[in-house]
Amino acid sequence: MMGEEKKISVAVIKRLPRYFRYLGELLENDVTRISSRELSERMGVTASQIRQDLNNFGGFGQQGYGYNVEYLYTEIGKILGLGNTYKVIIIGVGNLGQALANYANFEKRGFLITGLFDVNPRLVGMSIRGIEIQDIDYLEQFVKENEIDIAVLTLPKVKASKIGQDLVKWGIKGLWNFSPIDLKVPKDVIVENVHLSDSLMTLSYKLNEQKVLQKQDNKKEK
Amino acid sequence: MMGEEKKISVAVIKRLPRYFRYLGELLENDVTRISSRELSERMGVTASQIRQDLNNFGGFGQQGYGYNVEYLYTEIGKILGLGNTYKVIIIGVGNLGQALANYANFEKRGFLITGLFDVNPRLVGMSIRGIEIQDIDYLEQFVKENEIDIAVLTLPKVKASKIGQDLVKWGIKGLWNFSPIDLKVPKDVIVENVHLSDSLMTLSYKLNEQKVLQKQDNKKEK
Repeated sequence: MMGEEKKISVAVIKRLPRYFRYLGELLENDVTRISSRELSERMGVTASQIRQDLNNFGGFGQQGYGYNVEYLYTEIGKILGLGNTYKVIIIGVGNLGQALANYANFEKRGFLITGLFDVNPRLVGMSIRGIEIQDIDYLEQFVKENEIDIAVLTLPKVKASKIGQDLVKWGIKGLWNFSPIDLKVPKDVIVENVHLSDSLMTLSYKLNEQKVLQKQDNKKEK
Repeated sequence: MMGEEKKISVAVIKRLPRYFRYLGELLENDVTRISSRELSERMGVTASQIRQDLNNFGGFGQQGYGYNVEYLYTEIGKILGLGNTYKVIIIGVGNLGQALANYANFEKRGFLITGLFDVNPRLVGMSIRGIEIQDIDYLEQFVKENEIDIAVLTLPKVKASKIGQDLVKWGIKGLWNFSPIDLKVPKDVIVENVHLSDSLMTLSYKLNEQKVLQKQDNKKEK
């Protein structure tokens, strides 16, 4: 189905996981039906935006009845590719890599950690949730033999660029990158970045902006 | 200065940390001057976009000479609020909380971890980088006595919402939220979200889309 549709905008795609999250919560609370208006109030998005977004996928609502929560949840899950399973490796098993390796929810969604790699001899040989941490020297062979879908990069900046390029050369098509660099990859490779420092700086920017605005308000009041 | 300028668009703000990151790398490599064209090639953004973005802040380039890297780096740093220091607490010191507490780079940028809190009695009393993990029962007093700027929420979903509200009530204006919920806060409180599951689902969506596109291409070739 998806391939026949028009190309969906990045903005819509970015909102889909959020819909999926809210619908999952509704399901947990045994809500079976919801109108676009109710969903709009919960999510802080306009009702027309919701209708528009969901129309991209043929729309699953019925006029006057609202959306069937479970159906919509399942369909958006499919659109997000969550019906499949993905073999995932994590490269760099420091604190952040360990946090991700320990996150059981990823497995529930079909993201199966199949390999852990690090250069640190103190980590190599240890296991997390039954997966042994291997020396990074075994990475190439492992990737070539195991049809890995996604590599998670939780490496220092200086190493991430080279290893990212190697992984692509060895056939990996999905990179979840936590290193503070922008990887240069061919068009058919997908990179999703989580730049923590960028996020923290955005927060500090907004905090400062807020302070400035408040000072101005205070001046006006005097 | 900033208060007198027009309100800067969210899109520009989101790009600033990236400029800051690239300029920092140039500095590390002793590059002192760069044209918007060169910067554009490195960053994969058009040169006119770069000029436009930096014009928001009065523009720091000189026609024909390019940008002074150090000056621009410093100025963008100031705009991002990085000249200041921020007192940060982390609530939820599981794997992810520990990862963030151990990340020395945050401290270099002025984000000082001043408190760590958890409910887990096995964690309470342990120290990370000299900061003792306290029982969450002490959170209220600590926040009220220490003028905390930013609270990092690395808590399970069910707890994050209540604690987020408490923190706001106790006067915290900045929340860096890693819990998979959208916090409802007053207008003068800034929330910056890092929703890891959302990011991973965006990646799986794009991987699937890519597969569909490739299948279509293969069909056409036949």
